[in-house]
Amino acid sequence: MLLTPGSGRARHLTDDAAILSAMLSVEAAWAMVLGDLGVLGVDQAHLVADRCDPGEYDVSQLADSVESGGNPVIPLVARVRTAVAESDPAAAALVHKGLTSQDVVDTALMLIARDSTALLCDRLLSCADAVADLAGRERDTVMTARTLGQPAVPTTFGAKAAGWLRALDAAIRGLSALRYPVQCGGAGGTLSLLETLAPGRAIDAPALLAHRLQLTEPVAPWHTDRSPVTAIGDAIARSTDALGKVAGDIVQLSRPEIGELSEPVAEGRGGSSTMPQKHNPVLSVLVRSAAMQAPALAASLHTSAALASDERPDGAWHAEWSPFLQLLTIGPIAGGQAAEVLEGLQVHREAMQANVIAALPGLVAERRSVDPGPVDVSDYLGAAPSFIDRSLAAHADVRKDLAS
Amino acid sequence: MLLTPGSGRARHLTDDAAILSAMLSVEAAWAMVLGDLGVLGVDQAHLVADRCDPGEYDVSQLADSVESGGNPVIPLVARVRTAVAESDPAAAALVHKGLTSQDVVDTALMLIARDSTALLCDRLLSCADAVADLAGRERDTVMTARTLGQPAVPTTFGAKAAGWLRALDAAIRGLSALRYPVQCGGAGGTLSLLETLAPGRAIDAPALLAHRLQLTEPVAPWHTDRSPVTAIGDAIARSTDALGKVAGDIVQLSRPEIGELSEPVAEGRGGSSTMPQKHNPVLSVLVRSAAMQAPALAASLHTSAALASDERPDGAWHAEWSPFLQLLTIGPIAGGQAAEVLEGLQVHREAMQANVIAALPGLVAERRSVDPGPVDVSDYLGAAPSFIDRSLAAHADVRKDLAS
Amino acid sequence: MLLTPGSGRARHLTDDAAILSAMLSVEAAWAMVLGDLGVLGVDQAHLVADRCDPGEYDVSQLADSVESGGNPVIPLVARVRTAVAESDPAAAALVHKGLTSQDVVDTALMLIARDSTALLCDRLLSCADAVADLAGRERDTVMTARTLGQPAVPTTFGAKAAGWLRALDAAIRGLSALRYPVQCGGAGGTLSLLETLAPGRAIDAPALLAHRLQLTEPVAPWHTDRSPVTAIGDAIARSTDALGKVAGDIVQLSRPEIGELSEPVAEGRGGSSTMPQKHNPVLSVLVRSAAMQAPALAASLHTSAALASDERPDGAWHAEWSPFLQLLTIGPIAGGQAAEVLEGLQVHREAMQANVIAALPGLVAERRSVDPGPVDVSDYLGAAPSFIDRSLAAHADVRKDLAS
Amino acid sequence: MLLTPGSGRARHLTDDAAILSAMLSVEAAWAMVLGDLGVLGVDQAHLVADRCDPGEYDVSQLADSVESGGNPVIPLVARVRTAVAESDPAAAALVHKGLTSQDVVDTALMLIARDSTALLCDRLLSCADAVADLAGRERDTVMTARTLGQPAVPTTFGAKAAGWLRALDAAIRGLSALRYPVQCGGAGGTLSLLETLAPGRAIDAPALLAHRLQLTEPVAPWHTDRSPVTAIGDAIARSTDALGKVAGDIVQLSRPEIGELSEPVAEGRGGSSTMPQKHNPVLSVLVRSAAMQAPALAASLHTSAALASDERPDGAWHAEWSPFLQLLTIGPIAGGQAAEVLEGLQVHREAMQANVIAALPGLVAERRSVDPGPVDVSDYLGAAPSFIDRSLAAHADVRKDLAS
Repeated sequence: MLLTPGSGRARHLTDDAAILSAMLSVEAAWAMVLGDLGVLGVDQAHLVADRCDPGEYDVSQLADSVESGGNPVIPLVARVRTAVAESDPAAAALVHKGLTSQDVVDTALMLIARDSTALLCDRLLSCADAVADLAGRERDTVMTARTLGQPAVPTTFGAKAAGWLRALDAAIRGLSALRYPVQCGGAGGTLSLLETLAPGRAIDAPALLAHRLQLTEPVAPWHTDRSPVTAIGDAIARSTDALGKVAGDIVQLSRPEIGELSEPVAEGRGGSSTMPQKHNPVLSVLVRSAAMQAPALAASLHTSAALASDERPDGAWHAEWSPFLQLLTIGPIAGGQAAEVLEGLQVHREAMQANVIAALPGLVAERRSVDPGPVDVSDYLGAAPSFIDRSLAAHADVRKDLAS
Repeated sequence: MLLTPGSGRARHLTDDAAILSAMLSVEAAWAMVLGDLGVLGVDQAHLVADRCDPGEYDVSQLADSVESGGNPVIPLVARVRTAVAESDPAAAALVHKGLTSQDVVDTALMLIARDSTALLCDRLLSCADAVADLAGRERDTVMTARTLGQPAVPTTFGAKAAGWLRALDAAIRGLSALRYPVQCGGAGGTLSLLETLAPGRAIDAPALLAHRLQLTEPVAPWHTDRSPVTAIGDAIARSTDALGKVAGDIVQLSRPEIGELSEPVAEGRGGSSTMPQKHNPVLSVLVRSAAMQAPALAASLHTSAALASDERPDGAWHAEWSPFLQLLTIGPIAGGQAAEVLEGLQVHREAMQANVIAALPGLVAERRSVDPGPVDVSDYLGAAPSFIDRSLAAHADVRKDLAS
Repeated sequence: MLLTPGSGRARHLTDDAAILSAMLSVEAAWAMVLGDLGVLGVDQAHLVADRCDPGEYDVSQLADSVESGGNPVIPLVARVRTAVAESDPAAAALVHKGLTSQDVVDTALMLIARDSTALLCDRLLSCADAVADLAGRERDTVMTARTLGQPAVPTTFGAKAAGWLRALDAAIRGLSALRYPVQCGGAGGTLSLLETLAPGRAIDAPALLAHRLQLTEPVAPWHTDRSPVTAIGDAIARSTDALGKVAGDIVQLSRPEIGELSEPVAEGRGGSSTMPQKHNPVLSVLVRSAAMQAPALAASLHTSAALASDERPDGAWHAEWSPFLQLLTIGPIAGGQAAEVLEGLQVHREAMQANVIAALPGLVAERRSVDPGPVDVSDYLGAAPSFIDRSLAAHADVRKDLAS
Repeated sequence: MLLTPGSGRARHLTDDAAILSAMLSVEAAWAMVLGDLGVLGVDQAHLVADRCDPGEYDVSQLADSVESGGNPVIPLVARVRTAVAESDPAAAALVHKGLTSQDVVDTALMLIARDSTALLCDRLLSCADAVADLAGRERDTVMTARTLGQPAVPTTFGAKAAGWLRALDAAIRGLSALRYPVQCGGAGGTLSLLETLAPGRAIDAPALLAHRLQLTEPVAPWHTDRSPVTAIGDAIARSTDALGKVAGDIVQLSRPEIGELSEPVAEGRGGSSTMPQKHNPVLSVLVRSAAMQAPALAASLHTSAALASDERPDGAWHAEWSPFLQLLTIGPIAGGQAAEVLEGLQVHREAMQANVIAALPGLVAERRSVDPGPVDVSDYLGAAPSFIDRSLAAHADVRKDLAS
């Protein structure tokens, strides 16, 4: 976490304690499902669920025993069984029965993903709201549109903000369309052990488990159809893309030679270890750094998906965990950092105006190519106001759809 | 194309001729829009559109003049203007007016993407239909479920095929949800030049252009909101993921030591340059190779999206073209190759049975862990039949939704 | 670490404690350099170095204060200064003076990289030695060469092992050619503050620091020339490539239908959470999973390198940390897992022979295409023995070069 | 090529004609090797070699027949045999004998890679020479060092150029250390067919082939040790990293608000399709776009390497071709574009000076933190001159080493 600046904004969602807790939630919910199906007695189910308390297990000791089985479920189940066996050996033997390790890890990661993307979505929404405010407030603030790094034509800062808004809203829509299915297939995706334990009832288990965990029921197990994972990874990458674009613009426009924007000032923030004058746009820099990392991580998830062999994969599944967790960590961090920047963004209208003036007459040369007369830059904004209106209306739709 | 096996299946969609044609379609449609808006006379608009005939332009000569402006629009517009000027110099001056290069390239790529993903979707649907047939037909064909490369529990080939089906259907749903917006923003995303030419009408242009090209109207220009591009790239990668998983299973199960599946035989296919006995599962190998390439290409699009600076980017946009075109090429090729394999897939039931027997008694050891009595493998299939039914029903829904 | 199986094999090299320790080593060494240059008195330098004891600092508290400055150096230096100030306020003010945050983080990461790659190299050497033994011992063990998943011609397991050996040796050579330069440039890469403190002596500092830390002296600062980082990332990826190929072959040949190899058996290893019969090739599966992750991580480092702007980057540098640390973590873990597999690899010669017989006559069809007479598979091994000899000789050279 | 700006700079190295030509060169050289080994008569060998004239084969027709065997060698060999059979059916039957398809494609790609990287290396050297000139000439041109996008301390443009130089020189050293081995292993990497044809001589073939093609002899076949390919990919990525950093700085410093650098002006270059005033730094933008693409392409090669199964891979090999060719194409193009920029780079010293003045007093605040007196920026350059000297000396060493 020392080299994940801002980890405090999301660490609790994806660290080892969170993973342990999520896995235990799955085992506890499964015990209740076994209770629903009559495999466990109701008291037994509650007993198991009670023993699935993260506080009772030592994460780092558990971490050391992960390699033997290739995943943390095997040693965890052994520990839970030991804990349950103190009270009820018969119930202990039925802990986890019917599931396979991948069911537990995949479902636990879906719990984590649900919470992480919810937080990311909230933060993107804060960003979008702040940007919508900017778009409205700075609707008429003329500034230089820049293309390929060079002044192009006049635009307004409201129009630029509206562009940020559209990308943020697209990311929010992407996140809110995600589904978080339980994984519930047993050893080979057939739930055959469960069917043995509860004849005729196995097919009911995924829905019961989904209900217990507030996840969705898939059509069937997705042990080797990794699209739920890649869809989440892609949606996070699309979110960091949107944030990265915004942050890049802010870093750029905060260069003092341009001087059109500044990050909000906070005590101690943006300082240097050696230069007293420094006010680095450090949050934007960090958002950018997340945006640079996400594409490769999302790609890793696709590679794993493409290589998901047999009924459960021989390496590709294990290769998902680290990039997936990293995306689930850096996404909400970047979202939080960006929201903080955008909610306090300082707009330097006078610098925008000065830069426009400095860029004349080139800035209106396109106009003059069809009409050589004099031109006021604020008369050369075309459909920008309409585009702002449409973007704000679309954002209102996003908010409405989220509410419903 | 020598090193893109099967390029004949999709080359015409993405090669230089296709790009030229698409760009000219955009310029032609734009002329008609200028006609709609009264900037060009109706006859002038038709004249320009007539001159936008790909047969009139030399692609390779054009390719040599792309570098100066950084994209092919600038030299193309010059050539179209020259062609139009022979009949009507005033109309010639108005060719392309109101647009910027990025409008033309982005919209042209959306035309190509629409056609490429439509073809990919068709081919995935052929794959899915073939796999649905297999799932139904082989519903009761017992085989070995394998996990981490080792025999696990019994399953059926129908259940395996149903697993393929779910991933293919998810990919199809992803593709069919895509949108292909026109890019129509002018130099700085404000349509200001167009507004000068057609006061009060610029805001109508995107819808008019979209109508002409059968693309969609975006909320506003997306010069630096690259989510339309990344969404397409991600959907293609999700498609090749699904295909890659299927192809990997086929290659694996076609190994003669396993011998459960074979690719359909075709004259000359799967041969070796030196070994006469060879019948390589070459189409599946090629599908796998596409699936291995796609994730990095899709990642490249996200990197570009995250770095889309200013009002139009200083490198990130140009960096999209090659990976995007490559995805649009390899996607449909892989889809076609997979469809051909799946429509003729040979299922060797006796080998499946023999492998099951060879894997006993381990294959039912899980069952015996709860019930030590004798067990028939076909009694240990759990919810597999129900999962098949659900998968087929979900596929029927996909077909129905596509039809509507 | 719960989802990094085998993290115990390398965690201590790259976790927060290791990062803190490395950063403090840099600050301590720098104090000694300031002593060498007369900026600090000898006692003062030792005082600072003494205060750079990781045990005196709370890592998790430090982690929470990283975001403000964007990196952990700023709060760390503040804490060290406070600790030193208790004894000598003047010395405290000079802690870190002359450096910039990036100097400390980059150099600390080079310390970590040096140790991680040394461990990886040792483990690759163990792998290579084990494989060389196999190549010699199984020189004449005829087996099936497989291409595109199908039997091709006869080979020997010794020849296959020799192929593994060549890739491992190439990876070892790559690692042993790496350099680990100190970063020592100050705020803008000019060492100007140090030159102010020690006129005429700044240019000596990089060599002094390198000497103290047993790193190398670069030509000049490499704040934005990230080739030292990408070179390490690439070399690790090349190592995991080699390991991944070996592990993939082992997983494949361990499938019981092929049955030619098995991982060494260890108490409890390879078990399943539900299937009692399972002996999964779990270490090989984990090695493969590392090999699937590394390419995207290494790519991330290149993206950062390509975007290293100005005198110190505005996001690209921060984006290196996580992928770099992840590579430095998974590399040695995979190396250790692979060494354990290879040192105990079980070779099933009878299965190799049986598979060869089953693949006849196709396996010698190529031979018969030029000479239709009967052929003994052991007479159709071509230059395989010579290639084994050459590979073993090349490995001996690697060992010799490493020793010198 | 329409969407590969500057393709004229390298297209001839990697297009289908080049691939055909390279494959035919391999077949021709192999015929001569068969002549050397007495398998073919001398006249027969020359006959085959004569028939390996690219002008005699239709590339696009060949491209359409690539899919059946999965690679272009099978149909190509058939065509060459037909051509040879007109004169000498016995010789025709021996065309390609002893090799496998992968031998031909891998060796052909090494020929292409050798030429492409040689061109890239030449162009990097042009870049480096131009940058070395700048470093010397602008040694004392004071400018603003910028970190995290903000003014930091004074530096000189010479020092900045020296930083570019070090990265370029590192890239050049990386390229010049590459090896381009022939692939010569036959169907299973044992050269067994050749050994049948030329008993006792197969082991000599790789050296003979290498000699004929001016490639290097590997220790043994590298069908599944893909380190020669990944090493080339990584070296190209390191080259585009270096170029991308330079280009990014130029684009940045060419923004008129900063105005410190400009690309050389050329007739028509940098224009816009709509804005007459535009002089975009288009070559730098294109170089940047190459640098953004290369990391993902290089990663794809590593993924393939890690998945190289059996004796020849079941998809991973085929997945290399497109990313490898793309790297071999964009590398030299970017090198040529960058050389053109750097050889004519315009340095605006007055703007550098003005920006320094505008950044005062912050720019010397670090200095004042240890010495509050007045300070002339040119007295706060620390070791910059020495770093320039060292960089120039290191560059001279690079040149010397290349010459020897």
